[in-house]
Amino acid sequence: MIGVFDSGVGGLTVIKPLIEYFYSDIIYLGDTARVPYGSKSKETIIKYSIENTRFLLNKGVDFIIVACNTASSLAIETLRSVFDVPIFGVVESTAKVASEFDSIAVIGTKATIESNAYKKTIKMFNKNAQIEQRACPLFVPLIEEGLINDEITKIVAKRYLDGINSQSLVLGCTHYPLIKNIIQDILPNINIIDSGTSLIDTIDKNMLKGNNKIEFYVTDSPENFSKIGKLFLGKDFNGVNLVDLEDL
Amino acid sequence: MIGVFDSGVGGLTVIKPLIEYFYSDIIYLGDTARVPYGSKSKETIIKYSIENTRFLLNKGVDFIIVACNTASSLAIETLRSVFDVPIFGVVESTAKVASEFDSIAVIGTKATIESNAYKKTIKMFNKNAQIEQRACPLFVPLIEEGLINDEITKIVAKRYLDGINSQSLVLGCTHYPLIKNIIQDILPNINIIDSGTSLIDTIDKNMLKGNNKIEFYVTDSPENFSKIGKLFLGKDFNGVNLVDLEDL
Repeated sequence: MIGVFDSGVGGLTVIKPLIEYFYSDIIYLGDTARVPYGSKSKETIIKYSIENTRFLLNKGVDFIIVACNTASSLAIETLRSVFDVPIFGVVESTAKVASEFDSIAVIGTKATIESNAYKKTIKMFNKNAQIEQRACPLFVPLIEEGLINDEITKIVAKRYLDGINSQSLVLGCTHYPLIKNIIQDILPNINIIDSGTSLIDTIDKNMLKGNNKIEFYVTDSPENFSKIGKLFLGKDFNGVNLVDLEDL
Repeated sequence: MIGVFDSGVGGLTVIKPLIEYFYSDIIYLGDTARVPYGSKSKETIIKYSIENTRFLLNKGVDFIIVACNTASSLAIETLRSVFDVPIFGVVESTAKVASEFDSIAVIGTKATIESNAYKKTIKMFNKNAQIEQRACPLFVPLIEEGLINDEITKIVAKRYLDGINSQSLVLGCTHYPLIKNIIQDILPNINIIDSGTSLIDTIDKNMLKGNNKIEFYVTDSPENFSKIGKLFLGKDFNGVNLVDLEDL
């Protein structure tokens, strides 16, 4: 059983390929009462990540996938020092795939970019890589508002991406695959790398196989999560449970 | 001593006139670790509002001002039933000022607008008022990004405000005064009503007088709060303290 957490719905783009290709058994936690993480401090992100991991371990999962780029960037080392199970972060797998290129642009939340986690991790795999990083803080609210084919999102994206001329672009936030088309239109020749496909390229696939038993837990309204989440998972789903992490 | 809470920095636009005109003594709590409230459920907003109020009462305040329109809209009745001190909400005072007009547009967060709190409260004061409500969920992230004189904010505002032709417009969110100029440019003849000035128009001014002793508490990074907050308060400030409400 795989435990997956994210600050909200974004991590659904990470479990989508796990469900489709490996029928993984997953307990997914979206911390929707405290979303977003990307504008908050390292200390707060670590605290919430520890609570999320503890919740999933209490549910009996065998290992953890941190499906949030912000939490992966800022909390993964602390989580590994506190807990005794394998903990995978999307930053490492995405950085590994990106490191096959020599010039790489990384976009993400403010917290992810300021942490330099992508830069450091890519350099471990390819020390000569040219890396450019940009925070795109308005992408998450625009996507959560459903403006994924909207003129406003195109204008914002043009401003954020202006002048990028690297070979590859890391979508360093699990929301961003929903506006991949807008991004590709602005940078037509760039190779786009996202966290969901990178994860299954780097993890031992035997760990992913299951019978498609999925449980969803959220810290705020299950109805809202199902409603917005279907955009991210690409299909309808229900059976979402409300949980209060502060009471554990 | 006045206890004031908000989900983050927005409430600083409410205490600004209290500080400038009445030298009020204030303990201000910004719940920056869990911001925003405006996209979350009633249950979560009530839970956080109770924790915020309990913290302020433990600090010895005499009464509470809920300086967040979302919390005022959704939690004020519960707070009054749980706690035994006077609790003022910005929705009531702002609605009272607005009710002097016969046609009123209200803009706010999704949670504020969906609660119909403004509509119900204005009707109590002026049962014939024509009221139109619109959620403007992108305004808060745009303002928090500092895009208060930006072309993107103007385009978003034009879309949200298109077709409004009432006599008055309620800024039903304490962030919105920062883009008052953009709003007034789009609706040049409308009377704009904001929460800070409405509050001092309706509260007993003897309750506000003090010696300008101000303490700030936040649940996430004090540095970020001071940095963004000076835009809202209109001046630099420091002495911001970090507090963990979940540990109380």
